[in-house]
Amino acid sequence: MSGVDERVDTLAGLLADFVLSGGKRMRPRFGLAGWSAVSPADAVVPDEIVTACAALELIQACALIHDDIVDASDTRRGRPTVHRSIEAAHRGLGWSGDPARYGVSQAILVGDLALTWADEMFVTSGADPAALGRALAPWYAMKTEVLSGQMLDILAESSGATDELTPARINRFKTAAYTVERPLHIGAELAGAGADTVAALREFGVAVGQAFQLRDDMLGVFGDPEVTGKPSGDDLREGKRTLLLARATALAPTGDSDFLLSVLGTDLDTDDLERARRILVDSGAVASVEAEIDTLTVRALDAIGSDAVSEHGRVTLRDLAEAATRRRA
Amino acid sequence: MSGVDERVDTLAGLLADFVLSGGKRMRPRFGLAGWSAVSPADAVVPDEIVTACAALELIQACALIHDDIVDASDTRRGRPTVHRSIEAAHRGLGWSGDPARYGVSQAILVGDLALTWADEMFVTSGADPAALGRALAPWYAMKTEVLSGQMLDILAESSGATDELTPARINRFKTAAYTVERPLHIGAELAGAGADTVAALREFGVAVGQAFQLRDDMLGVFGDPEVTGKPSGDDLREGKRTLLLARATALAPTGDSDFLLSVLGTDLDTDDLERARRILVDSGAVASVEAEIDTLTVRALDAIGSDAVSEHGRVTLRDLAEAATRRRA
Repeated sequence: MSGVDERVDTLAGLLADFVLSGGKRMRPRFGLAGWSAVSPADAVVPDEIVTACAALELIQACALIHDDIVDASDTRRGRPTVHRSIEAAHRGLGWSGDPARYGVSQAILVGDLALTWADEMFVTSGADPAALGRALAPWYAMKTEVLSGQMLDILAESSGATDELTPARINRFKTAAYTVERPLHIGAELAGAGADTVAALREFGVAVGQAFQLRDDMLGVFGDPEVTGKPSGDDLREGKRTLLLARATALAPTGDSDFLLSVLGTDLDTDDLERARRILVDSGAVASVEAEIDTLTVRALDAIGSDAVSEHGRVTLRDLAEAATRRRA
Repeated sequence: MSGVDERVDTLAGLLADFVLSGGKRMRPRFGLAGWSAVSPADAVVPDEIVTACAALELIQACALIHDDIVDASDTRRGRPTVHRSIEAAHRGLGWSGDPARYGVSQAILVGDLALTWADEMFVTSGADPAALGRALAPWYAMKTEVLSGQMLDILAESSGATDELTPARINRFKTAAYTVERPLHIGAELAGAGADTVAALREFGVAVGQAFQLRDDMLGVFGDPEVTGKPSGDDLREGKRTLLLARATALAPTGDSDFLLSVLGTDLDTDDLERARRILVDSGAVASVEAEIDTLTVRALDAIGSDAVSEHGRVTLRDLAEAATRRRA
């Protein structure tokens, strides 16, 4: 972009900073795990596979930059969000117009840049054309799925959905498909996996991904701010329509359920947060979600128990499943 | 998307409506012209080439949907913009939260969907893999160029750039490359063009594209609202940093130049608009831009004058150049 104009190159630099400043790299890691599970135990991952899997992190950059606009978030990973950084630069330079509008406008485009570069990086990674051709189907499906899931998430918050089906669908497409199932699927196709292996990895991925999200829902209410880096009870303040919440409102006595819905999406004080947490526990919702995490984990490990997945692949995947569902942050 | 959730399918339907409700189809037309110029005179365009070129319209859909958010536009092609449609639906359903924020949030994602579907449509068009492989370079370059140009455009407005280099770069990348040069380039690569032909078509495309934008700048100030469908003097009200404006502020006496800059980006009344127009004419800026449109048109026709471009290709391209630079809307 420096060939276009040094000022826009500076904006592109914010994308580089954003991608390189942190993140758990969940999607590239699952992509590589999918490739490794299908390859010989001692196989060294070729550069082109690393490139193709790293492209997943650019999709995540777009998702987070646009999400931060949608959520009007000021910080991400302890630093100003991209739209806020650009807003601050505008203000510092004393330019005309509204700094906040300027920040959002440029950040929408920085996110678009990440999305288009993700495709370029994946398709021109240098991976074997036949394998890449097979990997394109889950690649494109994943992008539609994550956008659909994100749309549904925003819609659910605004429409005040209280059913269990809506959070289950959000979980299925925004998290399970996007974070685990499709990255594994893509990695496996890049390694030339057979249909049985792909099916086993996807089944594992859906279950682990769903358990990952349920753990996220628990951490969003009960997580330790010191470990998660997010304010305590963040999901309740944001008004997130999680399965944990849907289950609590269905199971709790009317008074408790009404209370939960009344504080949802508000800036809860310590007492309200304590009462909301107690309702989630006393209603049985927490126990029920924990049990579901266990069930999903068992289902995931069952899915990769057959000969369709190699012994070394099974070990790697089991560790990843453990990390995704037992984590504290 | 109906497989994910019928409510997000409705949101995707807004994208279909948007794409099918109008537009000049400039980019697909230049894409097809590039293909035709390189193919035999009686060649029928295969479906896969139509699909690949039509994908350009989905990039344009993303660009316009996101632009309308950036510009806070209420209408486009005589209908509510996508973010306003979604806002109205939210309001109609009496959902919680701010309807305007909801509209912008979902419209960002609808634009993202268009951008990702553009790639999917192009890459999976079914075009010959070798030709498609060559066409990918201009495809990806074009997307980076248009985003860079759009970023620079927004930056120029906010920073109050008065130089001629900035609008020239915006014109070069946001319009010339994106609207004419790269679509022609992509179409030519899809038809297996040789290097000489590609070079000739690109040179033609840059010149026609630049002339197209200069005509747009003229119409943005002097266009007939009945024909353009936009308010009279729209570019001045929006504070656009065009070459026409940069030239007028450089050529006009200080008092006139100061007046122009002082009304730029404001809601000009009829008298102000009349005075601004007179300054643009009296300064010589209008005559100079018209002369530049003529020079660019001559350069464009010269570029396709050699044997590198077929006789029938030349006729098609000349007509398109005429339409792009002599139009009234």
